[in-house]
Parts: sequence; structure tokens; C-alpha cells
Amino acid sequence: MSPTVNGRVLFNEVPTGFPVPGKTTIYDKSKTIDLDNVDLEGGFLIKTLVLSIDPYMRGKMREPGKKSYSPPYNKGEPLDNFGVGVVLRSDTPDVTPGDHYYGIFPFQEYDIRKNTDGLRKLTNEHNIPWSVFVGTLGMPGKTAWFAWQEFAHPEKDDVVFVSGGAGPVGSLVIQLAKADGLKVIASAGSEQKVAFLKELGADVAFNYKTTDTAEVLEKEGPINIYWDNVGGPTLEAALEAATVEARFIECGMISGYNSGGAPVKNIFQVIGKQIKMSGFIVGNPKLVAKYEERFYQEVPPKVAKGEIKLREDRSIGLESAGQAILDVQVGNNNGKKVIIVAKE
Amino acid sequence: MSPTVNGRVLFNEVPTGFPVPGKTTIYDKSKTIDLDNVDLEGGFLIKTLVLSIDPYMRGKMREPGKKSYSPPYNKGEPLDNFGVGVVLRSDTPDVTPGDHYYGIFPFQEYDIRKNTDGLRKLTNEHNIPWSVFVGTLGMPGKTAWFAWQEFAHPEKDDVVFVSGGAGPVGSLVIQLAKADGLKVIASAGSEQKVAFLKELGADVAFNYKTTDTAEVLEKEGPINIYWDNVGGPTLEAALEAATVEARFIECGMISGYNSGGAPVKNIFQVIGKQIKMSGFIVGNPKLVAKYEERFYQEVPPKVAKGEIKLREDRSIGLESAGQAILDVQVGNNNGKKVIIVAKE
Repeated sequence: MSPTVNGRVLFNEVPTGFPVPGKTTIYDKSKTIDLDNVDLEGGFLIKTLVLSIDPYMRGKMREPGKKSYSPPYNKGEPLDNFGVGVVLRSDTPDVTPGDHYYGIFPFQEYDIRKNTDGLRKLTNEHNIPWSVFVGTLGMPGKTAWFAWQEFAHPEKDDVVFVSGGAGPVGSLVIQLAKADGLKVIASAGSEQKVAFLKELGADVAFNYKTTDTAEVLEKEGPINIYWDNVGGPTLEAALEAATVEARFIECGMISGYNSGGAPVKNIFQVIGKQIKMSGFIVGNPKLVAKYEERFYQEVPPKVAKGEIKLREDRSIGLESAGQAILDVQVGNNNGKKVIIVAKE
Repeated sequence: MSPTVNGRVLFNEVPTGFPVPGKTTIYDKSKTIDLDNVDLEGGFLIKTLVLSIDPYMRGKMREPGKKSYSPPYNKGEPLDNFGVGVVLRSDTPDVTPGDHYYGIFPFQEYDIRKNTDGLRKLTNEHNIPWSVFVGTLGMPGKTAWFAWQEFAHPEKDDVVFVSGGAGPVGSLVIQLAKADGLKVIASAGSEQKVAFLKELGADVAFNYKTTDTAEVLEKEGPINIYWDNVGGPTLEAALEAATVEARFIECGMISGYNSGGAPVKNIFQVIGKQIKMSGFIVGNPKLVAKYEERFYQEVPPKVAKGEIKLREDRSIGLESAGQAILDVQVGNNNGKKVIIVAKE
């Protein structure tokens, strides 16, 4: 069989503001791969089915010298992020064609992997679409599930505020908070997203672009728990509306990702209000050890039965990745953004 | 006996920046009291010996509508804060002339109290100066001691950074951290204070006005624990220099007290670095219940033996309170600021 184009999305340059498709990232078709004959050198050939597009990717688009929890993308090389792939050929013991794996994938259609380090084999007993394994059943779902259990400490009659409520993290947080019997206030950036917040069970749902967050929290709060996906002025409003001994779960601050950080003027409120602010990343080894296996046991059946709701915003084809990345930073997505790279 | 002048320091107006003696506060001699004959109405007459001047008092100099953890001062009425007094006369059972009490005192020389609610009788077996009971053995000392035990979680080889290290809170924190075997970096705002930091055992001591905090932390860090007394740019530098899973103990943010709050641009670091930020106030009932009695058992003997060092900056006479308050806000004090109101 003749070589197949192995499409890739390359990191091209560090953006100064929002990441621009074709400039920050480039879709490249220059590489080919002979799927039948390429030497696996003891590894296995995997075909990328799904790639996740997440807000945190913006932080990896930086100069190599700047330290952060996640390594920077390298110029001229493919981006990477969570994905699901299917094994086409294998020289590796215990890896069989047809097996599905979840983990960090380069943004390319086919890859040869040396081993399964960092990958998780997906069994998918409930026959859930593979794309869900990068959303509610992947990193974002684990983010919500691990940290809610670790940091929320919900008590009867607590009020929780979830910003970025329509994303894959926020939407699961809303459902977890409702399952715990809490009053949930949730915000998002479009009417369509607000409608979704209501479907998820949020008691109060509002569009932060047309409604003043501080006013909503003044009326519907005070808040005992704040799940922060956005930072900036929303975090300031949450600090003002917090009760004594409120828990602030710091998951993301997308409002500052494209501007070098959004300042917070009233951080002093953490003192008088005795707030406990917990920053975390889902890959924390202690959180993973404590929660991951239970997550994969408990959550997939609930997703399969529709007890946990989710919404996806799919883009088809790897060439759509650059635009999808921008959409997520701007908030133009409507649900968990995934790239459907290929069918099985 | 003829009536005695009962000097008072009254709250006069809400300051816009620093509190100005004679403007924000006024020393008033218009009231008198007949110490021998005044009707106690079942209460007791107490003479103020010592009053504490603390940074947090600035937060009480606000318009009455603004909520905070501590009630605002009332215009035309005396300020109040922690103090020690001696009982002169008593109609109250179990309260005897000569008894000493610690608690919140109005800024006036003599007061008639209905009961001992909120007061703690001081036995002072170690014959320590009464002024120390508003410093290392009072609210500031408890602040350091309670929160270090509750939030620091020191581990071997940890590095701690203490800002405002020369104050009564910071100076005890430094000593607690050294007792736990940690490397201590401490900052203060004058060469005299820096010399004191070194006496206390700080491994690295610097004047933040002449040395760049970020450079010191870059060289001597990274830091596992940050004890924050100042907020603002120092907090920003600490966020940059923090390790993964650092603990930030948010005790005070004096850099913003006179300007409506100092913005923090890089609060997003709490996420990637998985920082746990704990705001607290020493009066938290759970902290008091957990630590107060042990504090009064363990700390006074150490102070008496000189195992815990302290420094006081005394002003004599109630009329010096307005200037003392300003000095503490500006940082012109050199040690725990106390007003020696009267001798026994």
C-alpha cells in the first residue's frame, strides 16, 4: 500500500494574545507514513481517533524558558493533548490491534509508540462514544470529580457558585453539587450555554456578559463554595460574596490566559473571611492515587444511563484544531470541544 | 477625692489614606471620673495599664455600612483594642482589686465594666511585663502560634519566607520555624529591623525597601511556606518563588490597608503550583478551642526564660496613641507597638 498522509498540527510561534490558527499553529501535510510496512521497532502503531481541546493548552504556548506545571510546546513540533486512539499494528506484548488507549497524544493522525507508558487501556463496557473519554470521562471529568471530593466539603444549605459552568469541568461540578443537595449558582457566556446550565439543574443560571456577577451573588448568595474556572473580575466578585470559611477551588483562570494574568484587587478578603483557597491540577499524584480508580468505576455507568449529562462540541478533522483552540479561549464553543480526527 | 481626668482617644473621621493623629483620631480630656465614689452598679472599675496598637485597626476605621470580620469604630466614641488593666474597685463577685485582665479595652484611662465577658484573668506566674500580654503573649503571639500549627505543615528541608518579620507576629513565626528546623528567609523595612531578624535566627534577612524581594527568593528559595503579613508585590514575588504544593498563610496585607487593597497580578500561580492559601483570623472559635489553653501553658515560660525573644516599641501615655497608630501603618515602629497608659 502506498504511503498515507500523516496530518499534523504544529506549534509555530508563541502568541501574544489569542492563539491564531495558521499563525500560532499550522496544519501540516508534509509527512507520510506507510501504515502496512512502517517498522514498529518493538512498539505499536496507533491511529488517533479523538483529540481534546482544553483551555490549559494556552499555557503551553510559551517560550521554553518559562517554568510551569506542564511543559511548553516546542516550535515546529506537533501540539499534544489528551486523546483516544486505536491500535492498528503491534510488536508490543499485551498490545493488540483493536485496543483503545487514552492518554497524551501528539496532534497527528498516526503515531508509533514505544510502549504504553502514560496510556490507559479503555475497555468501554458501556459502549460510550470514544470522545467522551477525553471529556466527562477524561481529564476534565476527573478534574471536577477529584477536586470536588477533595476540597468542597459541602454542608447542608451551602450555596456554590460555578463559573464557566457550561464547560466539561463546570457542568460536572454543577451536577455533583446538586447531587449533594446544594443550591447552585452558575455562569456562562451565552444564552445557549445558560440554557444548558438550567438543564444540568443549576438553581440560578446567568450570562455573565449581560448580567452583573456581583449583583447575582449579592441577591442569591452569600456563597460557601466557589468553583473558579475563570479568575479575574469573577473571582473578585466571588471574594466579595463569600461567607466566612468559604472554600475556593481554583481550577482555572481563563480570563487571564491570553493577557498574562488578570489582576485581583481584593485578595485581602481571604483573611477577614478566613477563606481556604485550593489550587490544584488533576495530575497530582496524591489525587490520582486517591480517586482515579473509583472514578472509572463509578462515573461511566452514570454517563451511560444519562444520570450524568454532558454536551459535546465536535469539530471534524485534525485541520480544524487551530480554530477549535481559539474558540475555546474565546468561549465560542458550546460544550466540550473535541476534534474527531478519524473514524475507527 | 476630686474627680480625675479620664483621657480618651476618639475616632473622629474615616481616613482616606493613612490615619492622621488629631484628624482621624482625637485625644480628649473632657471627661472626668470620681475613682472613689463612682457607682459601679454591680460591675467593677478597671484602670488601663497597656493598650496594643496593631495593623488591623486600620480596617476598623471605615464607614459603618461596610461589613468586615471586626466591627467598625464609631465616630465620636473611643477606639478599642487589646489591652491589660488592673481592677481598682469591684462590686462583682470573683473580681478583686489588684486582679489583672486581658481583653478588648476602650482607649480610655478608666472604665467601668459590667462583667468579665470577653476578658481573661492574667495570673502571670512568671512575672512578665504586662505589655507582653498584648504582644507575644497576646493576640499577635496567638496569631503566629495558632496558625503555624494549623496551616504550616512543615517538612524537613522546607524553606519558609516571612514578610513583616520584625513585627510581633512575624518575629514569633521566625522562631517557630527555626524551632522546626526550617530555613527561614525574612523581610522587614529598615536596617534596624533586619538586625532584629538576624537575632531571631533568620537564615536570610533583608530590607525589602533596598533589596528586591523577587531576587532574594530566586536565590534563596524556592519557598515551601509563605507567611504573608503584607500582600501586594511581596505576595506576587512569593507566588513566583513558591514550590509545588506550597502553603500560603494569609495573616495580613498591610501594603493595601491604606489604599483600598493592593492588586495581585499572578494569583493564577495558585493553580499550576497547587498552592493552598489559608486566610484566617486568630479569633476563629475552632482555632481558639484547639490551641488557646496550650498557648498560655507553653509560651509564657519560654518568654520568661528568654527562649522566645521579643522586642517592644513603647509609647508612653494615651495621648501618644494617634501617632503610634500611624507609625505602625507606615512601619516606623521598631518592635511590637504598645501604649503604656499608666503604671500600676
